[in-house]
Amino acid sequence: MAPSPILVLTTGGTIDKNYFDALSEYQITDSGIPALLAEARVTLPYRVVELMRKDSLDLTDADRALIAAAAREAPENRIVITHGTDTMTDTARVLAAEVPGKVIVLTGALSPARFAETDAPFNLGMAFAAAQTAAPGVWIAMSGQVFDALRVKKDREAGRFVALP
Amino acid sequence: MAPSPILVLTTGGTIDKNYFDALSEYQITDSGIPALLAEARVTLPYRVVELMRKDSLDLTDADRALIAAAAREAPENRIVITHGTDTMTDTARVLAAEVPGKVIVLTGALSPARFAETDAPFNLGMAFAAAQTAAPGVWIAMSGQVFDALRVKKDREAGRFVALP
Amino acid sequence: MAPSPILVLTTGGTIDKNYFDALSEYQITDSGIPALLAEARVTLPYRVVELMRKDSLDLTDADRALIAAAAREAPENRIVITHGTDTMTDTARVLAAEVPGKVIVLTGALSPARFAETDAPFNLGMAFAAAQTAAPGVWIAMSGQVFDALRVKKDREAGRFVALP
Amino acid sequence: MAPSPILVLTTGGTIDKNYFDALSEYQITDSGIPALLAEARVTLPYRVVELMRKDSLDLTDADRALIAAAAREAPENRIVITHGTDTMTDTARVLAAEVPGKVIVLTGALSPARFAETDAPFNLGMAFAAAQTAAPGVWIAMSGQVFDALRVKKDREAGRFVALP
Repeated sequence: MAPSPILVLTTGGTIDKNYFDALSEYQITDSGIPALLAEARVTLPYRVVELMRKDSLDLTDADRALIAAAAREAPENRIVITHGTDTMTDTARVLAAEVPGKVIVLTGALSPARFAETDAPFNLGMAFAAAQTAAPGVWIAMSGQVFDALRVKKDREAGRFVALP
Repeated sequence: MAPSPILVLTTGGTIDKNYFDALSEYQITDSGIPALLAEARVTLPYRVVELMRKDSLDLTDADRALIAAAAREAPENRIVITHGTDTMTDTARVLAAEVPGKVIVLTGALSPARFAETDAPFNLGMAFAAAQTAAPGVWIAMSGQVFDALRVKKDREAGRFVALP
Repeated sequence: MAPSPILVLTTGGTIDKNYFDALSEYQITDSGIPALLAEARVTLPYRVVELMRKDSLDLTDADRALIAAAAREAPENRIVITHGTDTMTDTARVLAAEVPGKVIVLTGALSPARFAETDAPFNLGMAFAAAQTAAPGVWIAMSGQVFDALRVKKDREAGRFVALP
Repeated sequence: MAPSPILVLTTGGTIDKNYFDALSEYQITDSGIPALLAEARVTLPYRVVELMRKDSLDLTDADRALIAAAAREAPENRIVITHGTDTMTDTARVLAAEVPGKVIVLTGALSPARFAETDAPFNLGMAFAAAQTAAPGVWIAMSGQVFDALRVKKDREAGRFVALP
């Protein structure tokens, strides 16, 4: 039986932050996700769609509606979404309400993928596996754990996601 | 509800290969797995046990019996095993026969974890997630995919794992 | 004959930029220079002194006076200074006027040392070699070239240093 | 005044060692030197010629004659040679005898350039700078130091080059 293909939607966030010397500032740029998947030698069929390049603190209701629509209308039933960590749970709630019957896994990074030390490839690997093995619903893969996306929060000072009781 | 802790058993393989200039050769050394988990900022409870440091072509029946015993006797029900890729499926069959009722995920790498370009952190992330979300049984997480470990083989020339029909 | 030891003064700049998720911003932090020298397996005697942690656009006349005093008063005659690239030539002019008779090499990076892709270790290697082999004076080691520091400018759009005619 | 271009001759050695899972072994492959120079954003004119792909313990007199001929006949007067470290000093003696009047800098690495932790870019940066600032002669840039190539040896156990008295 052929494996179900995975749709990867990129929305920005720390995972895709880059540094531009000419501007002396950091910006979210063209997504590094395709390079990470190539480096991981992924042969499972997948498709990457870059939806937006935003810090998650800047995402609007319209942005979240667009993400949900892209997930809902896609032919794929297994979806990985890369996203800034600060409002990842807000987007998860919109997806849970508006995209029934699919396995959706949100992930991101606390350290940019372009850094020598980064949680990005590990987190993306978690998201790929969870998209294949988890039940339909919305999940968050961060801090080495696959969380029910409706029962988790980011502890910003501690730099980790923690399950809600 | 507290998450189930994960036991990580390391057995060697390409993922832990290192280079020693004084010997002008590569050897499997002290495992790089703890460093990968720290870099991934894993906060889920886990325990790493280094069982052996072997190329998987050198694993004996006694080695496989030891791996199975370590998995069976451990208090953890979710187990990740890092392993050379050439005989990963052989060890999987022993585990399937001898360790019932646990979620066991084998993983490894085609490029050593100490390389700048490597599939190691992505694969380890897949294994961590699959150990949390897959059904009890033995799984192989490689090539971006979570395979039923009894229905997969390594295609050595192509450098990938492929599902058996 | 024992080699002359090298003094490394760090002042900040892109080479030492880091990212802090808790703040969602980049800052110059504890210098990564000692880690780069360890990774390069440098056995030549050296001493690292962190003078300040500043973007070079924020350096004041007082900062430059402090850098010059540290270079002048040091027992070492061979000095490497890591520095932001935007005003590297301004600091070089102060050093040329105020620190005679020493070999001083300024270097930095267009991409932070903590990035997977960075010019930092190559540039630092250039600076170390130039400090050992160049004549007394002030030099800038960037863009693969050792420049007379009084006859070079940064071309910000092109992302490179170019010699003045 | 335009800078003198640099010729880079690659001969193999640890700096260019790679790992091939299909063979379960390490081999010297296509040189990673052009990628290192691109990452270092070198804009000084240079030309890379791959002469051979050998462990330096396997170099023959004929190989060394070829290296010397390539250096002597080249239009460039500033030459960087990447080379295995075990017999780097042997090749240096041949170059000193047969290629007068040029600045030749040999370098290499104790850890392969493809590793996440490596001395390769720092050493290559040293060699580039020494080729621009050192006097005519043959030099070895390793261990953070630019050595007179006729007065240095490799201390294999200690993993470093040391000056001879």
